[in-house]
Amino acid sequence: MKLDPYRIKEDFPILSTLTPNGKPLVYLDNGASSQKPKSVIEGTSKYYEEENANIHRGIYHLSQHATELFEKSRIKASHFFRSPCAKSMIFTRGATESINLVAQAWGRANVSEGDEIVLSVQEHHSNLVPWQMLAQEKGAILRFIPIKEDTTYDLSGLDSIINRKTKIVAVSHMSNVTGTIHDVKPIITRAHQMGAKVLLDGAQAASHLKVNLTSLDVDFYAFSAHKMMGPTGVGMLYGREEILEAMPPWLGGGDMIENVDLEISTYANLPAKLEAGTPNIAGVVGFAYALDYLTKLGMENIHEHEMEITEYALTKLNRLGGITIYGTDDLDKRGGVISFTLEGVHPHDVGSILDEEGIAIRVGHHCCQPLMKLWKIPGTCRASFYAYTTKEDVDSLVASLEKVKSIFSRVAKR
Amino acid sequence: MKLDPYRIKEDFPILSTLTPNGKPLVYLDNGASSQKPKSVIEGTSKYYEEENANIHRGIYHLSQHATELFEKSRIKASHFFRSPCAKSMIFTRGATESINLVAQAWGRANVSEGDEIVLSVQEHHSNLVPWQMLAQEKGAILRFIPIKEDTTYDLSGLDSIINRKTKIVAVSHMSNVTGTIHDVKPIITRAHQMGAKVLLDGAQAASHLKVNLTSLDVDFYAFSAHKMMGPTGVGMLYGREEILEAMPPWLGGGDMIENVDLEISTYANLPAKLEAGTPNIAGVVGFAYALDYLTKLGMENIHEHEMEITEYALTKLNRLGGITIYGTDDLDKRGGVISFTLEGVHPHDVGSILDEEGIAIRVGHHCCQPLMKLWKIPGTCRASFYAYTTKEDVDSLVASLEKVKSIFSRVAKR
Repeated sequence: MKLDPYRIKEDFPILSTLTPNGKPLVYLDNGASSQKPKSVIEGTSKYYEEENANIHRGIYHLSQHATELFEKSRIKASHFFRSPCAKSMIFTRGATESINLVAQAWGRANVSEGDEIVLSVQEHHSNLVPWQMLAQEKGAILRFIPIKEDTTYDLSGLDSIINRKTKIVAVSHMSNVTGTIHDVKPIITRAHQMGAKVLLDGAQAASHLKVNLTSLDVDFYAFSAHKMMGPTGVGMLYGREEILEAMPPWLGGGDMIENVDLEISTYANLPAKLEAGTPNIAGVVGFAYALDYLTKLGMENIHEHEMEITEYALTKLNRLGGITIYGTDDLDKRGGVISFTLEGVHPHDVGSILDEEGIAIRVGHHCCQPLMKLWKIPGTCRASFYAYTTKEDVDSLVASLEKVKSIFSRVAKR
Repeated sequence: MKLDPYRIKEDFPILSTLTPNGKPLVYLDNGASSQKPKSVIEGTSKYYEEENANIHRGIYHLSQHATELFEKSRIKASHFFRSPCAKSMIFTRGATESINLVAQAWGRANVSEGDEIVLSVQEHHSNLVPWQMLAQEKGAILRFIPIKEDTTYDLSGLDSIINRKTKIVAVSHMSNVTGTIHDVKPIITRAHQMGAKVLLDGAQAASHLKVNLTSLDVDFYAFSAHKMMGPTGVGMLYGREEILEAMPPWLGGGDMIENVDLEISTYANLPAKLEAGTPNIAGVVGFAYALDYLTKLGMENIHEHEMEITEYALTKLNRLGGITIYGTDDLDKRGGVISFTLEGVHPHDVGSILDEEGIAIRVGHHCCQPLMKLWKIPGTCRASFYAYTTKEDVDSLVASLEKVKSIFSRVAKR
């Protein structure tokens, strides 16, 4: 089914607002966070207005109903991502916390001196720093999968990089800088052959691709609700059930215990074991509305729409001249994230001028400093799309970039 | 200023709803979570409808405005709690995460084999289990401050319990089971004399008392927004600036870094160092509305109102007969939380019958199993009040407890 982004836009109140200088908002920073449809905003309000209570511990109706809403959201997410099992789906604050949970709770129990942890050279800081911290603590070694010119993973040395010393491979499913959709199957296969676990950072992929956790056969998968049209402060960690079962808990507190004495405690079963304390109940309930909304649109349809917009944008941007686009041209290998630089113009200047035109793009290192260093640039400009992005939005972007170019060519001529 | 709870009630949409069997909701589970005023609900919606963007990284207006809202909330919380410094106020998911942050990041770096950690025998699981986990990992020793008959801390042995081996003292400021407001000054003084740090679990106190972090002179203070009329999924950790500065980071990811290379990173300054990843932005923004609302009511006025309600409730409950009330009768030493048991009736049966009457109380161990074991009971019934609790609510509670008694006396007579 072909999506109508104009119709979808109407569901997002913020997308019909004007910027302070009276320009219609052109929101092209979906890689950082998505906007929220009315159903999510109203669903969250409804929760607070009619359904709010603490969960899991109350026997009165309101608390039981809130618990039901919370657990239904877990089941909905489990179905959405085709997880083998709902109790493998752990609620966190976001993808960053999900990855730290694995690095700290699973990592401390399973990684020792001399063990190897495999990442790629283009990981987001959230899938790099937690592993650096673990490696430093344990004396483990970090190894990196390189990328090719087209920013896809270079798998030529995979058999050496992932070996019997490898304990875990943690790589991104889709790049937040270039939109590259990575071919993760050979990595997962090789890692499992070597007895290593695999974590996929799905922060970008979860919002733009149909992710099937069962067929991916991955051990851990991390994502954030706020990039998926859902509330802020909610994310999930999928973990293979037997791995989560065998893992020690991470945070101690209410809900994650079974029996508590002053000196020692026993822990609850999954998923409670890994969800200490009162969670972001309203956020989790709101996330269910986002999953409903995405399901109604269809993840394949979203991807198809983004491909159309990306193709349109790549063509128009390439015609601009004086532009470098980072990442592959192959639409089969990329999603709707375009990183670029304009010759002779600092990305921050591009961002500032675009902002005056009401166009919100991200400029900088995109939490990916090592990649910027590899490319020897301070940063890029990044436009990232979603189901509500229209060709007109792209036209506005391109027109404003022309303006940037003309301003800077005048400056240069002076 | 005397508060009018009937007027306040009108600000909380959920408090005028009916339960499924048509009874007006009498919400007496504020110890578990509070309800939210319209301003918080509408403020959160407004954020999503007009102001939503990821923070700290965008140079476009929307992102800068969202960052400003987020940081203003931090400053507001800093003023609300009279913190010496806003960057000492770290946003977390809730009090549980705040305590775990200290136990894990500060604790791992500062607690060694044979060191002692001092808690009390009546801590919430969230201020017990994280320290058990740390003690087990490090070979440290847990010591416990006992409580007196009236449930206040028994400080007679304090000089032996807190000694030169003590690294940290972590105790609750106000009990979630009995409402006891603890005299923490002697504990803080003794701990500091011995060179130990002090963490106060303020999960209950923060919502009901005027907390002055500067005059308390405490090293860490943990609390949750959702118990303070604020959104779920938000809490804070206050930490003395020099301690947080000297501490290693806890979670790795975006925002908490300065310079990242593949092998090693340097970390950002406070507060960013301890706030990795996209936070619960909408929740934090919503929390500012809650702080405004509480400021308008006045924390002293809230406490005074709760004392009036508590005195009224204690008098009425004591008249019931066949009731045991846990905790002190001294209104100078307690807040609006009343734990009780009815002779010959299991707390769960009390809770169920009250639920049919539309009265929401909490029954069970209140995440405080060791205290229940000390008292040799399976749990208590707990009614907990807030600024919107009326004498009529207490009357409904007492009338329903009379009904419980009459049902069970009929059962007993058969």
